[in-house]
Order: sequence, then C-alpha cells, then structure tokens
Amino acid sequence: MKTGKFIVVEGLEGAGKSTAMSQIQQILSEQGISFITTREPGGTPLAEKMREIVKAETEEHLTAEAELLLMYASRIQLIDNVIKPALAEGKWVVGDRHDMSSLAYQGGGRQLPDSLLLPIRNAVLKDFAPDLTILMDLDPRVGLSRAAARGELDRIERMDMGFFDRTRNVYLELANNNPKVITINAENELVQVQKDLSTTISNWLEKNK
Amino acid sequence: MKTGKFIVVEGLEGAGKSTAMSQIQQILSEQGISFITTREPGGTPLAEKMREIVKAETEEHLTAEAELLLMYASRIQLIDNVIKPALAEGKWVVGDRHDMSSLAYQGGGRQLPDSLLLPIRNAVLKDFAPDLTILMDLDPRVGLSRAAARGELDRIERMDMGFFDRTRNVYLELANNNPKVITINAENELVQVQKDLSTTISNWLEKNK
Repeated sequence: MKTGKFIVVEGLEGAGKSTAMSQIQQILSEQGISFITTREPGGTPLAEKMREIVKAETEEHLTAEAELLLMYASRIQLIDNVIKPALAEGKWVVGDRHDMSSLAYQGGGRQLPDSLLLPIRNAVLKDFAPDLTILMDLDPRVGLSRAAARGELDRIERMDMGFFDRTRNVYLELANNNPKVITINAENELVQVQKDLSTTISNWLEKNK
Repeated sequence: MKTGKFIVVEGLEGAGKSTAMSQIQQILSEQGISFITTREPGGTPLAEKMREIVKAETEEHLTAEAELLLMYASRIQLIDNVIKPALAEGKWVVGDRHDMSSLAYQGGGRQLPDSLLLPIRNAVLKDFAPDLTILMDLDPRVGLSRAAARGELDRIERMDMGFFDRTRNVYLELANNNPKVITINAENELVQVQKDLSTTISNWLEKNK
C-alpha cells in the first residue's frame, strides 16, 4: 500500500490558515483521497494538554526555552501517535502548523538561537518532514487586524509587531531555501487567494499523488 | 552577597529521598542557612502542570521522547523562575531530583540514546549544575517494596524491574564520574543511613559553606 502524504499549512495569525485548510480538504475529497487533519501544538489528548500550558494566560512567565520544549514534546507525541500511523495506513494528513512554526515563532519571534533550537529539533524529528508546506504569507499588520476582528487575541497573538516581523522573515527565508514550501500571497482578496491555492494544490497533486 | 548553593537528592523510588530531604533541611536550619526546597518534575505552577502530564494514567501512550522534552521544559522553567533567582539572592536550594534523574530514568530506564538526550540536555542546561548531589542508592527490589508499602505506585513506578536496574546502573555510573555526587548506601538500617548522610553533609558544609 502507498503511504499517505503530509501537507502542512503555515502562516501568521490572520493569514487565512483555516480557510486554506478547508479548501485543501475539499480538493482532497474531490480527488477521493482519504485524509485526517491535525493541529499544532496539540492534536492528541496529551498534546492538547501541552497546548493548554503554552496558550495559558498565567502570572508565571513561561520561559522561551520551556515553550520550545513543549512545542517539540507536543509535536513528537502527534507524529508518533497520529501522523505516522495515518501515513502508514495510506491516509493523507493535513496539518494546521508543524515544525516551520517553531523555527519561525521560537527562532525568529522569540529570537532563540539556532544553537539551542537546532540540536533539539534535529534530535527529536530526525528526518521527518512534510511532503508539502503551504505558507500563507502576509504583512503581520494585515493579519493581526483580521485576527483581532475575529475576537480576543491569545498570549502569543498579543506580542509586539517586531515579534511578528521577525517571525515572517524566518518563514520567508525557510520558504526560499526549501523546494517543498510554496508561498501564497495571503494579502490578496479572498477570491484570488483561493484561486492561487487551488491551482497550487492541483498542480502539486498531479505530480505527487 | 554570596550566591547560594544548590543541593540535590537523587535516587530510585523507596530510596528514602524524602527522609534525606528533611534531614538536609534540618542541618541547614541548624547552621542558620536560609534555603528553599524544590521538586522535579514540577516546582512552579506551570512546571507542575507538566508534571501532571508526565504522571497521568492515560489511554494515550506518552512517548519516551515527549516525556524527556516535558522533563526538560519543566526543569528549565524551574531553574529560570525559581532556582537561579533564589541562588542569586543568597538562598540555598534543596532539590528533590534534578537532571541526573533524566539521565538515569530516560537514558537508562527508557533507553533513549545519548544522541537524543545529550544535545537536548546540553542545549537547555548549558553549564548549570548542582553544587552537590546526594545519591541514595539501593537495589530497586528493596526500594519498590518500600514504595509499594506506602500506597499505590504511579505510571513510572510500575515499570518492570529491568527498567529500574538500568536506571540504577546509570545513576552509579554518573556518580562514579562526577566528584560532586556522593553516594549513600540506602539499603542500610534507617539509623545508619541518617548517620552517614549527616556526616556527609556536615563534612561538605565545612568545606563549601
């Protein structure tokens, strides 16, 4: 049996990740591809408990290092207990965020040095990586005003703008250096974004299904 | 102002760590040394939430890698938010478990390879280490029968005996290679153990206070 493929949607808050997730699911369904969806951090009962710690508004400051370790704890829990078994069964996996988020947010946004981040990442993930990552790129000012319009922002979403500019820069840098990442301009009108995404996914599926 | 010292008590379940913790606290009090106590995993509100995940009896299997990352997330949270500030204020810190536990339990017991464990440990802890570690050593068969007599055993405490033999072996190996670890024979009668511990701590304090 053919193993499944792992497609990830990445991007800043308000970049339209949820809409992109839905659209990808619809395209896969139309093509008769069986899939599951995941989100990170979280995606399993124990990983969701780790997500709660990361997202919680607490008096105690969660250190950047602890946050990073929780992200990878949650990630490996999800990979081993959900993603890998699904792929082995031939199911596809559509993920709302994955490892690129840690590199962008913890490395870029929180400015954790590569000397901390990369040994942990490489030791934990080894050679596991998505087959395709869709980066929904936009100016964080646009994204955050969209996210704010939807309701209250969480602990991470209330960081200063420099945090998000640094995060976006790392996202774009990683995308430029990885042929398995395709960047979509998410600042365009919704109709255009959906058209771009649809073309991208359809082209990729033709070559990789 | 002189910075405080960090003393850790390590050992298998039922090795008498709690009794040793109390005895060390009493000796420090008698010498007029101001101190706080910690426990790992845990010791801060957020680190205690991580402890809950590690200790929970869940249907979902917590992977050995996720467990390791949670241990270090909890540890760095405790070091940065509690241990280092206390030491900087001149307070001593008496810890119920610290990094040696991860090397022994996750490395020895769970057999996680050094290629996974050491990059994470070194990236997170850098050169932070206790000034003195007291290893309460005993045959795990003796320790577990003592722990069982106290009540229900938790998820880790119900591992097979091979797990604890491997854990003990790593403990002893680390102790042999680190002059800042002193091993106490915890299989002896309580009175003898307390006498040995008292002599050890008093001698160390004379040189290091």
